[in-house]
Amino acid sequence: MSPEHFAALWRSLLPIGRDGRDGGYLRRSWGPADLECREWFTEEALDRDLTLDPDGNGNLWAWWGDPTAGDAVVTGSHLDSVPHGGAYDGPLGVVSALLAIDLLRERGATPRRPIGITVFTEEEGARFGVACLGSRLLTGAIDPARARALTDRDGLTLADAMTKAGYDPADLGADPARLGRIGAFLELHIEQGRALVGTDAAVGVGSAIWPHGRWRMEFTGEANHAGTTRMADRRDPMLTFAYAVLAADEEARRLGAHATVGRVEATPNATNAIPSAVTAWLDARAGDASVLQEMVEALRRRAAERAAADGTGFAVRPESESPVVEFDSGLRDRIASRLGGAPILPTGAGHDAGVLASHVPTAMLFVRNPTGVSHAPAEYATDVDCWAGVTALADALEELAC
Amino acid sequence: MSPEHFAALWRSLLPIGRDGRDGGYLRRSWGPADLECREWFTEEALDRDLTLDPDGNGNLWAWWGDPTAGDAVVTGSHLDSVPHGGAYDGPLGVVSALLAIDLLRERGATPRRPIGITVFTEEEGARFGVACLGSRLLTGAIDPARARALTDRDGLTLADAMTKAGYDPADLGADPARLGRIGAFLELHIEQGRALVGTDAAVGVGSAIWPHGRWRMEFTGEANHAGTTRMADRRDPMLTFAYAVLAADEEARRLGAHATVGRVEATPNATNAIPSAVTAWLDARAGDASVLQEMVEALRRRAAERAAADGTGFAVRPESESPVVEFDSGLRDRIASRLGGAPILPTGAGHDAGVLASHVPTAMLFVRNPTGVSHAPAEYATDVDCWAGVTALADALEELAC
Repeated sequence: MSPEHFAALWRSLLPIGRDGRDGGYLRRSWGPADLECREWFTEEALDRDLTLDPDGNGNLWAWWGDPTAGDAVVTGSHLDSVPHGGAYDGPLGVVSALLAIDLLRERGATPRRPIGITVFTEEEGARFGVACLGSRLLTGAIDPARARALTDRDGLTLADAMTKAGYDPADLGADPARLGRIGAFLELHIEQGRALVGTDAAVGVGSAIWPHGRWRMEFTGEANHAGTTRMADRRDPMLTFAYAVLAADEEARRLGAHATVGRVEATPNATNAIPSAVTAWLDARAGDASVLQEMVEALRRRAAERAAADGTGFAVRPESESPVVEFDSGLRDRIASRLGGAPILPTGAGHDAGVLASHVPTAMLFVRNPTGVSHAPAEYATDVDCWAGVTALADALEELAC
Repeated sequence: MSPEHFAALWRSLLPIGRDGRDGGYLRRSWGPADLECREWFTEEALDRDLTLDPDGNGNLWAWWGDPTAGDAVVTGSHLDSVPHGGAYDGPLGVVSALLAIDLLRERGATPRRPIGITVFTEEEGARFGVACLGSRLLTGAIDPARARALTDRDGLTLADAMTKAGYDPADLGADPARLGRIGAFLELHIEQGRALVGTDAAVGVGSAIWPHGRWRMEFTGEANHAGTTRMADRRDPMLTFAYAVLAADEEARRLGAHATVGRVEATPNATNAIPSAVTAWLDARAGDASVLQEMVEALRRRAAERAAADGTGFAVRPESESPVVEFDSGLRDRIASRLGGAPILPTGAGHDAGVLASHVPTAMLFVRNPTGVSHAPAEYATDVDCWAGVTALADALEELAC
């Protein structure tokens, strides 16, 4: 087997949900492209004589060996995308898992522990606002009733979306039996940064995930006519919002953290009307939880001061908060050593592996990304590096399961 | 007749296109509510034995007297709204026109010039981006081919929307014959400010419309992952946008002008992605054209400097620009005098009257607005003041036509 095997399987997934204009992906969980991705995975698993075993949370599972034996080694990632996202974030881990099994079989490896592949649902949180929703449901990190009531931008609930897709939302919820049968979890992912660029390593091993979260910011004012309302009479929430965007950026740079305002919605969003409200979301991350907290507090204080001056209202509340995740150090070192001393690196991005890490010894592999770009159509890794990722994943699975 | 007559006719129009949650109006031109408003007007005109005579531009016309006689006195306004706008902006002028005819008839007045009522289409520009579209088409201020190709937010063209509503977009274009038959134009409108508040006048007469315009601002950067991209590596157009919002506000206050950014669209608009682009619209107005130009130039310069620092792209281009409009001083003084010395006031808002003023002697009447709020559900005038508006309009029509 060779990089050509990677390229062939990769190509079969590429057309699904791709936007014809910018080449980005529109794989909204439970939407048509997502369902097509699920079919693609199911067929690939059946082609390999794997045992399919989907759970009640919308996550897919396929097994080489007995799913019920326990102490399994599971690998996988997700197939949903952010809107206009890249091809690699998620799918690279799923494609690599299928190919790693092919490679182990070519090597004549005989697993003494079952090997599972999983595809988690709604990892990006791009549709229902909660990232890693599938793994959170599996591990009981989110209440199933709350999950069912989450809504997308059109007001459709997760329950509605699942029902429409032919799934039963009544089955959502923690699955301790399934979780208990996992002895180790491994997620391979494209690197979303440039730590491996310029090194001779195509693959790195994860050390930790930065603490991170999403905060919803509500700026409220008074709708009025843009042409006739004197500047002194305005209560314009767009001003407070704009100030908060710049303040978040300044605080992040000051503290060596990351802050992003990528989503904004103005009401009524008309050119000649002062908005009545602006809603925006802050994505914030830092190497340390106290720094993250300091950044969000500084933003809250500064935006509230500006709101007082603007005569507007301002409120910020967390929609999700994830503490720092340290991956299992024993697993990490064993895999890095098996890979001939692969570099060890942290990441600012959340992953299903981060959710599983509190329950199961967990590790991550990162594949080099020459531009570091992610969540955008330019996200990319060479076929040769991706094949190095498949080989590394097969090596790690062989080390742990065979 | 009395304020009760106003209230009764007013009530019949109120339910059409009203949002049940905030009480604001969603009367998008050519949408279902707009078509229902057109039916309402048609029925009211027929009830009064007026002669219906719609033009090819989607504007409605109803006549007391011979439409072809020429030297007509025409009054009217519009029925479309900004999204979640108020009830009065536009409809007050149409309802008042119908009631003014009732009142003239009650008085036994005999017009020696035909009196017309017109309802212009897409005055707000809320759907297709060009304000006063119906009057611009009538007067030849916009090329019909360009108008047909204007698109709404869903990508639907004006031509498509008209066709869907059962109108033929091939008929769009300048109508000099119709325009030539108008001897004077009068628009009654709710005041969108508070100049009449605290005076004993319920009605004022317009002197001028401030020069104003809309500019489209494009901020471009590089989409990337919010969690993993170092602050120093970002090219985040949301920052440049936020800076431009604050700069526009500062420049407007410095120059005594008005600047508003009420509409913004981020791409891809996802919480965990640095945007690739932000598009926003500037609404800017000033008492003087040179001040308006100075403000927009200052904004352009400052945003371009910030874009250079952010590593982003910035471009601003006008979507519509309207020079100052001075209403006909003879007509203005004649009406003000007939109304017993009504106050004379300018406005920052554009109106179809402003478009017609370059072709026909034109005047405006403003009805007192106790809060000054407009383009929002709280927009309001008392029935008593509205009735004073009807009476003033009837007086003005009688003065000019009878």
